[in-house]
Amino acid sequence: MSLALDPAAQDLLFREARTANTFTDEPVTDEQVQAIYDLVKYGPTAFNQSPLRVVLVRSDEARARLVKHMAEGNQPKTSTAPLVAILATDNEFHEELPALLPHFPQAKDAFFSERPVRESAATLNGALQAAYFIVGVRAAGLAAGPMTGFDAAGIEKEFLDGDHSVLMVVNIGKPGEDAWFPRLPRLAYDEVVTTV
Amino acid sequence: MSLALDPAAQDLLFREARTANTFTDEPVTDEQVQAIYDLVKYGPTAFNQSPLRVVLVRSDEARARLVKHMAEGNQPKTSTAPLVAILATDNEFHEELPALLPHFPQAKDAFFSERPVRESAATLNGALQAAYFIVGVRAAGLAAGPMTGFDAAGIEKEFLDGDHSVLMVVNIGKPGEDAWFPRLPRLAYDEVVTTV
Repeated sequence: MSLALDPAAQDLLFREARTANTFTDEPVTDEQVQAIYDLVKYGPTAFNQSPLRVVLVRSDEARARLVKHMAEGNQPKTSTAPLVAILATDNEFHEELPALLPHFPQAKDAFFSERPVRESAATLNGALQAAYFIVGVRAAGLAAGPMTGFDAAGIEKEFLDGDHSVLMVVNIGKPGEDAWFPRLPRLAYDEVVTTV
Repeated sequence: MSLALDPAAQDLLFREARTANTFTDEPVTDEQVQAIYDLVKYGPTAFNQSPLRVVLVRSDEARARLVKHMAEGNQPKTSTAPLVAILATDNEFHEELPALLPHFPQAKDAFFSERPVRESAATLNGALQAAYFIVGVRAAGLAAGPMTGFDAAGIEKEFLDGDHSVLMVVNIGKPGEDAWFPRLPRLAYDEVVTTV
């Protein structure tokens, strides 16, 4: 069974794409990030919630502040990646809902007046958008290095105004020397998919 | 700024792909689902956790059981889609970790001995995999209709043995007549991305 997506694109996005741990010095430009966003912004979220927010860490000063909140094993790559992005959710995403869902502006109050409901929805839908973002980084011909090993409260306090939750930190760039380990195994189809 | 991914693939996966609300009668085969899985299984998760589990609802009896747990507005499309998939997380994913992370089998006990930690990790990483799955459905030339409006506890009780949490239900098939509404607006780059 062949897919509609051509094999080169399958390789670029999934089969040959790998999580990179080292990077070349080649910069990642704002124009590249904009092109990534302008592709993956179309990925679906529930009620078009669109809770993902991105902080690009570009200055040396900001990088140093971020690195100290990363788990020790993540510090070298976070220090050396051409670009580091903090992916977070906006737990106040409902403020944008009337603009994002113009045919049903009452969704803001009908479904999202309670903060725990918003946080739960933002986590799920923000994670979907984080995955689209990773796919988009690969679509730009770059390697992504997503990480969840960090002091979340520390990053939120230093980098995120208002009510945000950090989901992951992503190193972005062209893969460098010995950029990855051998591919890890995956679960077989029958271990994941059942039919009723 | 052009992306490395060719424009036809950009359209197939993001720019022209849409959440479908109606479908043709054309079946979605197990071979298609296997091809989707065999592509998107390579998408990255933290520690290669791979917590996503998929239940394909194929029998009329199972479909009827599922539909009654869906929100009223989701019932017609869930009743008529060629294939419906329940996407869930396995909160006991750590049992597979020694096989999935053979160089670091102690991660199972060092990081995931506590159930709340596992549930939180499974939600984030399972949502990443759900997004890869949606992209994979599109890569197969099919439309996805992800839904979060349902009675989660009811679905978990009826369809999921053991400690699983349902993330979403996805209608899958070729788009039918009037399959979608006009594209909703998206946040502008500057509303989502900041630089420090």
